[in-house]
Amino acid sequence: MSPWPAARVGDPIQAIDTPALLLDLDAFEANLGRMMAAVQGSKVRLRPHAKSHKCVEIARRQVAIGAVGICCQKVSEAAVFARAGIADILVTNQVVGEAKIRHLVELARMARIGVLVDHPAQVAALLAATRAQQASLDVYVEVDVGSHRCGVAPTDAGTLAQRIVQSPPLRFAGLHCYHGAAQHLRSPGEREAAIAKAAQATREARRQVEQLGIRVAVVTGAGTGTFIHERDSGEFDEIQPGSYIFMDADYRANQAAPADVPFEQALFVLSTVLSRPDRAQAVLDAGLKASSVDSGMPQVWQRPGLRYLKASDEHGVVVGNGVTSLELGEKLLLVPGHCDPTVNLYDQLICVRQDVVESIWPIEARGALL
Amino acid sequence: MSPWPAARVGDPIQAIDTPALLLDLDAFEANLGRMMAAVQGSKVRLRPHAKSHKCVEIARRQVAIGAVGICCQKVSEAAVFARAGIADILVTNQVVGEAKIRHLVELARMARIGVLVDHPAQVAALLAATRAQQASLDVYVEVDVGSHRCGVAPTDAGTLAQRIVQSPPLRFAGLHCYHGAAQHLRSPGEREAAIAKAAQATREARRQVEQLGIRVAVVTGAGTGTFIHERDSGEFDEIQPGSYIFMDADYRANQAAPADVPFEQALFVLSTVLSRPDRAQAVLDAGLKASSVDSGMPQVWQRPGLRYLKASDEHGVVVGNGVTSLELGEKLLLVPGHCDPTVNLYDQLICVRQDVVESIWPIEARGALL
Repeated sequence: MSPWPAARVGDPIQAIDTPALLLDLDAFEANLGRMMAAVQGSKVRLRPHAKSHKCVEIARRQVAIGAVGICCQKVSEAAVFARAGIADILVTNQVVGEAKIRHLVELARMARIGVLVDHPAQVAALLAATRAQQASLDVYVEVDVGSHRCGVAPTDAGTLAQRIVQSPPLRFAGLHCYHGAAQHLRSPGEREAAIAKAAQATREARRQVEQLGIRVAVVTGAGTGTFIHERDSGEFDEIQPGSYIFMDADYRANQAAPADVPFEQALFVLSTVLSRPDRAQAVLDAGLKASSVDSGMPQVWQRPGLRYLKASDEHGVVVGNGVTSLELGEKLLLVPGHCDPTVNLYDQLICVRQDVVESIWPIEARGALL
Repeated sequence: MSPWPAARVGDPIQAIDTPALLLDLDAFEANLGRMMAAVQGSKVRLRPHAKSHKCVEIARRQVAIGAVGICCQKVSEAAVFARAGIADILVTNQVVGEAKIRHLVELARMARIGVLVDHPAQVAALLAATRAQQASLDVYVEVDVGSHRCGVAPTDAGTLAQRIVQSPPLRFAGLHCYHGAAQHLRSPGEREAAIAKAAQATREARRQVEQLGIRVAVVTGAGTGTFIHERDSGEFDEIQPGSYIFMDADYRANQAAPADVPFEQALFVLSTVLSRPDRAQAVLDAGLKASSVDSGMPQVWQRPGLRYLKASDEHGVVVGNGVTSLELGEKLLLVPGHCDPTVNLYDQLICVRQDVVESIWPIEARGALL
C-alpha cells in the first residue's frame, strides 16, 4: 500500500492526494436508509452483500439500522467480518478444498455461518469437517434460477436438500436463488420478466423440497438491480443487494421504472490531470489500477462534455467538449464502471461530507481472496 | 488482505489455497537472464519497470545481475523501493500536485530520482519544490513518439529541455521516448515499423535539443514487445521492459520473429473448480478480483480444449472440450490476460520450483497508487 495516506480528517477535498477512493457520506447514508425503507413493511429481511464494500464500519452500520447480517463471497472475507463481531454471515458460494472448509467451520464458533452447495460431494466434505470440528453450519441449496453459473436445476433441489437433512450436524437452511445475470438488464420490463421467471423456478425448487416433507426456512437472493421484484414476488425471505450503498456506471445505465428505489452515486475515484498535451485530450492519474474497467470505462462526474476514453495501467485519457480548458493539476471525480472490483483496489475509503474529509475507513477485507 | 496465507514454504503445489498468484522460479530466472543477455554487448542499459512486479525482492535481483536501476510509475511506488535501498529510480510519469512533488523530492535524498515533464508548468513546480527542499532531480522531457498519450511533439522538445537547463537545481537528463501502443502490435513487421517511426521521432527530438547546444545524456524507452528494435536503433541508451519477467496472455498473443527473445510464462493464477453444474461448464474460484480482464480473459494453462469464458467478481466460467471431466476441487493454472494489474490484486507472490513452494515474496508496492 502507499507509504502515506491520501488524506487526513479535516482536509478539504482539494487537498486529497490522488487517485483516491471517495465516499460521499450524505449520499451513502441516504442509500442505507432507502434500502431499509424498501424492505420495511414487507416480509423480506435485508442481508446486504459485503463483497461490494469489504469494510467493517459499513457492515456495522448496515446491521445497526436493521440488516439481519451480511453476505460474503469468500471464506477469508467472512473471517475478517466474523472476527470484527458481525454475528450472522452467509457465504454465498460453494466452498471447496480441505483447508478452506476447515477455516469456514472455525468461523462457525464465532458467528452463525451459512454456505451454499450444488453437489453432493460438497455436502460430504462439509459434513466431515463439521463432525471433526464439532461445529455446525447452515447449508443452502443453490438453485440455478436463470444465471446459468452455479446451482442445481429446480427439479434437483429436493434430492440435494434431503442429502443435507440426512447429514447432521449440517442444518438445511433453505434455497439460494440469485439471478445475477438479471441485475444489469437495461429496461425495467426485462428485469421484471427475468425475476418473474426466477420466482417461478424458485417456486418449483421449493415444491421439490417440500414434497419430501422438508421445510424451507429461508429463500434468499436478489441484487441492487432487481430486489423490488424479489421482494414483491412472495417467494423470498431475504435479499442480498450490495452495490446500492455505492452505485456505479453500470447500475446507473439501468433505466428506472417508477417503482424503482432511487439510489445516489456515493462512490468516486478522485483523479488529477497530470498532462495536457497539444492534442485535444487530458491525461488523468487514474487508470486500470485505480478503477476496474470490466464493465466499461469510468465516467466523468458532472462534466457532461467529457468522456474517459481509455485506460492504461496508471493513466486515463479524457476527451470531449471542454477538455482543452482543463488545467494541469485540476481534479476530476470519476464514477467507476463497476464498484466491487474498484473498491478492492484500495486500502481506505476517504469519507467526505460537503467537500471535507470527515473520516477514513479501512477496507479490511481488500484482497481477501481465499 | 486474507487473514491466513495461501501457502507455506515447503508446501506442494496441490496444498496451496486458491486463488493464489504463483511465480515459477525456473521460468522467472530464465527470463531475468535472457533480458540481461539481450542487452550485453550493446550500448543499451537495462532499467526494468517495477510497476509490473511491485516487489522489492524482484527489483533487488534485477539490479544484482546488472540492471542500472528501476522505473516506477508512481511516487508512492518509488518510495517503497527507495526505502528498501534501490538507489536509482526513474518515475516514468508526470508528477503533479504539491504534496506529491514534495514526496518525490524527499526521495531524492535517498536515491537518484528521475521524473518526466511535458509542460513548462511542471518544470516550474519541480523547481519550486527542489529549491525549497534543497534537493535535485533528473528531469526528462517526454516526447510523443507514436502513442499519443502524454508527451510533447518532437519539434517542441528543445524548448522544454532549455526550460529545464535554465532551472537549476533541476538537471536536464534526457528524453523519454516510450511507444506503449507498439508493444502489442501482433505482427513482428508492425512492431518493427512502429519503432522505426519512433526512432525517427526520437532523432528529431534530439536534434531539436542539441541545436540549442544542450547535451542529451540519456534516451530511454521501450517495453517487452519492442525492446530489440529500440536496442538496435542506435537512438536509445536505456530500455524499460517490465512484463518480460512474468509474461501474460496479451504478450503471448504477439507473433514472434526469429530475432525476438523468447520469454517463458512465469506468472500464474492457481484456481480451484468449485462447481460442476449439469451444464457443460466448470466454475472456478478466480474471477475479476483474481485476474485483470482489461486485456482479455485469462487462459487455461496446458489444457488446450478448455476456455475461460467469462468472469464475475469471484467466479470464472470454463467451457470447452474436456470440461465435463473436470472434478470438484481440481486445480487449474491460469495465465492472466495482463500481468501488471493482476499482480496489483495480490499481497504475495507464491514462488514455486518443480511444484514445491520455495519462497513467498511480499508485493510491497501493491496498491501504491499515489
